[in-house]
Amino acid sequence: MLATVIHAAHDIRVEEVPDPVLSTGGDAIVRVVAACVCGSDLWPYRGVTPTNEPHRIGHEFVGVVEAVGPDVELVKEGDFVIAPFYVCDGTCLNCRNGVSTSCLGGGWWGSDDRLGGFADGGQGERVRVPLADGTLAVVPGPVAPEEIPGLLTLSDVMGTGWHAAVSAGVRSGESVAVVGDGAVGLCAIIAAKRLGATTIIAMSRHPQRQALARRFGATHIVEERGDAGVDAVRELTDGIGADRVLECVGTKESMDQALRSTRPGGMVGYVGVPNGGPELPIRSMFSRNVGVNGGVAPVRGYIEELLPDVRSGAIEPGLVFDLELPLTEAAEAYAAMDERRATKVLLRP
Amino acid sequence: MLATVIHAAHDIRVEEVPDPVLSTGGDAIVRVVAACVCGSDLWPYRGVTPTNEPHRIGHEFVGVVEAVGPDVELVKEGDFVIAPFYVCDGTCLNCRNGVSTSCLGGGWWGSDDRLGGFADGGQGERVRVPLADGTLAVVPGPVAPEEIPGLLTLSDVMGTGWHAAVSAGVRSGESVAVVGDGAVGLCAIIAAKRLGATTIIAMSRHPQRQALARRFGATHIVEERGDAGVDAVRELTDGIGADRVLECVGTKESMDQALRSTRPGGMVGYVGVPNGGPELPIRSMFSRNVGVNGGVAPVRGYIEELLPDVRSGAIEPGLVFDLELPLTEAAEAYAAMDERRATKVLLRP
Repeated sequence: MLATVIHAAHDIRVEEVPDPVLSTGGDAIVRVVAACVCGSDLWPYRGVTPTNEPHRIGHEFVGVVEAVGPDVELVKEGDFVIAPFYVCDGTCLNCRNGVSTSCLGGGWWGSDDRLGGFADGGQGERVRVPLADGTLAVVPGPVAPEEIPGLLTLSDVMGTGWHAAVSAGVRSGESVAVVGDGAVGLCAIIAAKRLGATTIIAMSRHPQRQALARRFGATHIVEERGDAGVDAVRELTDGIGADRVLECVGTKESMDQALRSTRPGGMVGYVGVPNGGPELPIRSMFSRNVGVNGGVAPVRGYIEELLPDVRSGAIEPGLVFDLELPLTEAAEAYAAMDERRATKVLLRP
Repeated sequence: MLATVIHAAHDIRVEEVPDPVLSTGGDAIVRVVAACVCGSDLWPYRGVTPTNEPHRIGHEFVGVVEAVGPDVELVKEGDFVIAPFYVCDGTCLNCRNGVSTSCLGGGWWGSDDRLGGFADGGQGERVRVPLADGTLAVVPGPVAPEEIPGLLTLSDVMGTGWHAAVSAGVRSGESVAVVGDGAVGLCAIIAAKRLGATTIIAMSRHPQRQALARRFGATHIVEERGDAGVDAVRELTDGIGADRVLECVGTKESMDQALRSTRPGGMVGYVGVPNGGPELPIRSMFSRNVGVNGGVAPVRGYIEELLPDVRSGAIEPGLVFDLELPLTEAAEAYAAMDERRATKVLLRP
C-alpha cells in the first residue's frame, strides 16, 4: 500500500510499504478515508525534531474497518470510525477518569511497539489499530461525503480546542480570549461558544482566519500582541482581563500573552504543545490567582459528546480545512502548511 | 498604645506607638482581642526579607469596633469583627468575582499608604481599618472567649487552607494529598474533609501534627518525601496519584512533591507563598494534564461560609494554636515559631 514517509527535514515522500496485518487479538485494520497533517507533524518537517532515519508519519484519520481480531467486541467490519491521535484501552483508571492520553495500556501512533509491533498513524491507505475497542469511535452510518471533514476534526483539533475550553472551566456568560488562530484555536472558539461564553475574543492577524473566527462565534478580534494585546483584551473585559483564556500555540510568548490577558481569579486552558519548554511564572500566577490547566487533549473521550453537533451542523469545525489533496501529494500538503498557505490540509488516499 | 515593631532580623520589640485615629470616612478603629504570628512574618524575622528600618508587623487579628467613620454602614461600634490579612472594598469587579486579594481599591496591612495613611496590621492594641465595610466581617454576638482561636483562623489560615481545596476543585469521594503540615496545611485537611474527600493523605513527619491531622480528617499519614513520598501516595491511590493535591508550603521541593503526587488529569491547589520563585515545569504538567490553581487566598470572601461551622464546632481550626502569649511577649512568639516549638501562636493584647 501507499503511505507517507519522512526521510529528513523537508523531505516527505509517499512510498509503497507493507500492508498492515492483524497482530494482536484486539487489533482492527482500518482503510483510511481521510487523514490530516497536524501542526505537530511540522516539527520533524522543519527539523525541530530530528529525523534520524526514514519513518512513517501522521496520527489523525477516519476510515472504514476492514477486519478485526477475535477479541474486538465494539467495532465491526464495515464500521465508519474516528481514530484519536493516540491509542487507548478505554478501561483503565486514567481512561475512566477522562484522561485517555495517559492510558495505562495505550501509546502513540508510530512510536510505540508494545502493542503488537509498530502501528502506523494514518497518512497512508490502511492502518493497524491496536486496542481497537478503546481507540476507535464508531460513527453510525450512513456517512455522507460532505461529513468527512467535520468528523475528521474529532480525531484531534476539535477535541483539542474543546479540551482547552473545558480545562479552563468556561461557563455560560463568561468572557473568553483565544490565543492562536490555527485550526485548534479556531476550534477553541467553537468550544467557547458551545459552552455559553458571551464575549469571545480571537487574537488573530490573519484576515481569512478572522472571518472564520467570526463565523465560529468570535465577538471581537484583537490583532495586537504583547502589552498592546493585553491592553486590548482588558478594554473588552471591563479593564480586568478575560475570565478564561485558551492558549492554543505553545510558545513562551503565547503563554505569556495568555497569562497576562486573564483576569485575577481566572484560568488559562492550554493545549499548545510546549515548544522550547517555557516554564510558568509562579509568582505572578500566585499574586493574581491565575490558574493553568490542560495538556495533551484526551480527545477520544470527547467524540461521543461532540459528534451529534458535528453531524447536525450545529458546529462546523470541518471548515478549518482549507486545502484538500490526494495522499500522493502529501509533500505539497506539508509545504502548504509549513508556508502558512493552508491552515489545515485534508489528505485522501 | 503598645504594638509590635521589627527592628531587624531576630529583633522584635513591643513598643509604645501613637494611637490610631480615623483618617478617612470609611475607616473603623478596632481594639484587638487576639492576633497571630503568620508564617510569612518569619521572612523578615529570619532576614529573608530585609528590614531596612524599624516597622510595624502583623496582619491577622480579631477585635471589637471602637469607632467608625461617617461613611461606614455595615460595621458599628461594639461589633466583634474578623479582619482578613488584607484590606478590600468588597464592591469592585475583582471582589465580586471572589478575588478580593486583587481588590482594585484595597491593599496590604502595613505596606500601603493610599488609604488614608499607614494602617497597622494587628500585632498591637488597636488598628485603623480602611474600607471597614468591605474589610471587616461581623460576628454576631455574644462571642464566648473559647471561640476566639477558631474565629481568628478565619483571618488567614483556615480561609487559606480552604482556598487550596476550592482551587484544586476537591469534590465528594475524591482522594486528596496535603503537602505541608503547618497551620495552613492542617486547615487544608479540614477543608478537604468538609468538601467530601474520602481519602485524605497528610504528608507529615511531626508526631503532634500527625495527631492533629488525624483529628481533622486525615485518613493516612505519609512521612516519606521525594520519590518515596510520590510512591507512597500512589500506593494509597490505586497507583495513579491523588485526584487533588494541596500545596501549602511554597518551596520548589514542595511544589515538585505536589505535582508528582497528582494523578493524570488531577489538579494542584496551591497557597504556599512561592519562596525563591520556583517556576512550574510546563512540559510534565502538559504530558500528564496536571493543572495548577490557587494563589494568595481571598479569605475575606470565605468567612461567612465557614463561620457557622467554626462556631458550632463542626470544624475546629482553632486547635492549630498551640501557644498563647500576651502581646508583650511577641518576641518569644516569633522565636517559638521560628524554632518550630510552636505551629501557630496566638497573641492577646
